[in-house]
Amino acid sequence: MTDIRSIGTKTKFCSVIGNPVSHSLSPAIHNAGYAALGLDFVYVANRVEDVKSTLAGMRALENFRGMSITIPHKIEAIQYVDSISDVDLAIGSINSVVNENGKLEGFNTDGPGALKALEDAGVDLNQKSVLMIGAGGASRAIAFTLAWHPGIKDVTLLDIDQNMLDALGNDLKARSRATIYTRTMNDETLAAAMQTADIIVHCTPVGMHPKENASLIAQELFRKGQVVFDIVYTPLETKLLKDAKSCGLKTVSGVEMFIHQAALQFERFTGQKAPVQTLRDVVMEHLTK
Amino acid sequence: MTDIRSIGTKTKFCSVIGNPVSHSLSPAIHNAGYAALGLDFVYVANRVEDVKSTLAGMRALENFRGMSITIPHKIEAIQYVDSISDVDLAIGSINSVVNENGKLEGFNTDGPGALKALEDAGVDLNQKSVLMIGAGGASRAIAFTLAWHPGIKDVTLLDIDQNMLDALGNDLKARSRATIYTRTMNDETLAAAMQTADIIVHCTPVGMHPKENASLIAQELFRKGQVVFDIVYTPLETKLLKDAKSCGLKTVSGVEMFIHQAALQFERFTGQKAPVQTLRDVVMEHLTK
Repeated sequence: MTDIRSIGTKTKFCSVIGNPVSHSLSPAIHNAGYAALGLDFVYVANRVEDVKSTLAGMRALENFRGMSITIPHKIEAIQYVDSISDVDLAIGSINSVVNENGKLEGFNTDGPGALKALEDAGVDLNQKSVLMIGAGGASRAIAFTLAWHPGIKDVTLLDIDQNMLDALGNDLKARSRATIYTRTMNDETLAAAMQTADIIVHCTPVGMHPKENASLIAQELFRKGQVVFDIVYTPLETKLLKDAKSCGLKTVSGVEMFIHQAALQFERFTGQKAPVQTLRDVVMEHLTK
Repeated sequence: MTDIRSIGTKTKFCSVIGNPVSHSLSPAIHNAGYAALGLDFVYVANRVEDVKSTLAGMRALENFRGMSITIPHKIEAIQYVDSISDVDLAIGSINSVVNENGKLEGFNTDGPGALKALEDAGVDLNQKSVLMIGAGGASRAIAFTLAWHPGIKDVTLLDIDQNMLDALGNDLKARSRATIYTRTMNDETLAAAMQTADIIVHCTPVGMHPKENASLIAQELFRKGQVVFDIVYTPLETKLLKDAKSCGLKTVSGVEMFIHQAALQFERFTGQKAPVQTLRDVVMEHLTK
């Protein structure tokens, strides 16, 4: 279905909620996917302040099938869903809700989206040491996903904020079987961590517009064979990724995580394999214009 | 906008709610209107049991602009809106809610839709006596709208159910300035009422599929100059209307009321003049196929 005149009483709808949502790409991404597959779905956006009433309304509206949740509601939303997986409960935030006949299932595709981005890039995770730089919300989702992955050898967390570092470190130690190291970030701990890291995941805003010329990792710290994944995707290629690439390292852009977290939502909402290239085309069209 | 790929973060959406809603024409009607005018709206349908949560959700979802309410929720919904006009409060049911920046305004377009159908057919209401046959929910909305109309001389209600008749009659007497008569319906009271009626409004299910061959008004009761309005529209021309037409009377089909109640919702939801002929085409296409 592409024409709104084909919408009928069985058409399902989905929405992103957040505050603000005016720059969200989700309607463009998901509707392009529905159109590509001819699905009887439409996707809208809603600025929301009252998360509790929003989820109560979703539960009551039979055709309100899926919800993408963005800032600042990812943590609060957990308390209003009817079920959530152990790993998402440990992460403590969700970016998605699916309405299964009036039962709301919360889940987080940020971590799995990051994992998919790494796998799609051909990164082997088996017996690898991961270095996470930054211990905020996005790092939390990715760190838990990687820590629960059977292949990962260990995860090292670096952050300058000791409280956030300890919080995520302690949660990971308590709620995963992985070996977890935490280090207060400074030049020495970063250099030391770079000596053993196989996969570096950058989860701070450094390098994002308008600070495109900054990177936390000096080029001389890179070692052959490392993989560098930057969750920042504005610009599409950050200074960190440019530097890593010029040292011959494999790089993974945050835009792939963004595309895959949306694709995973799409698949759970529709029950269909996501047309990933269609979703990617929409994202790229918006990010490069 | 006609293509779902044009849906963005500013797109407003509307929904019909009811139980069931699987046969609702509202999505087809409203989306055809949006497409005809190029409006940034989409319209979906939702089977709903929990009306309270549905309206709470609507209040919380910034782009959830309009709601059409159908059976069985028209009465219950009143208690969850933030404002309602005096006449709609008197009617005691609403078929529409519009979300004005988080304030929900309830209203009923059934009565105004009936009035518009009469006016569009060129019926002069000034100093006219109205005979309402049936005192149920639809009759209630139309009777109040006509009783509040400054031109109407008097309204006579007939029903076989004394309790419903008294309830509507007493409410009309208490909450309108019109002259109201109530009569328990039988052959004599009907014949007498037909002697003085200028406009007859039929509000019972008689004549509706599968009882197409029935009519409450014997042909010999018709008098020259009378107008006969039947709210039944399946079939499009009921036996009542066929009989009235064959006696040379002006007739108004319930389908025009149905179209105009939708058009009035459309105008309140979108702020645009409804493309009535487009809406009519959709209704006719569905009712004649």
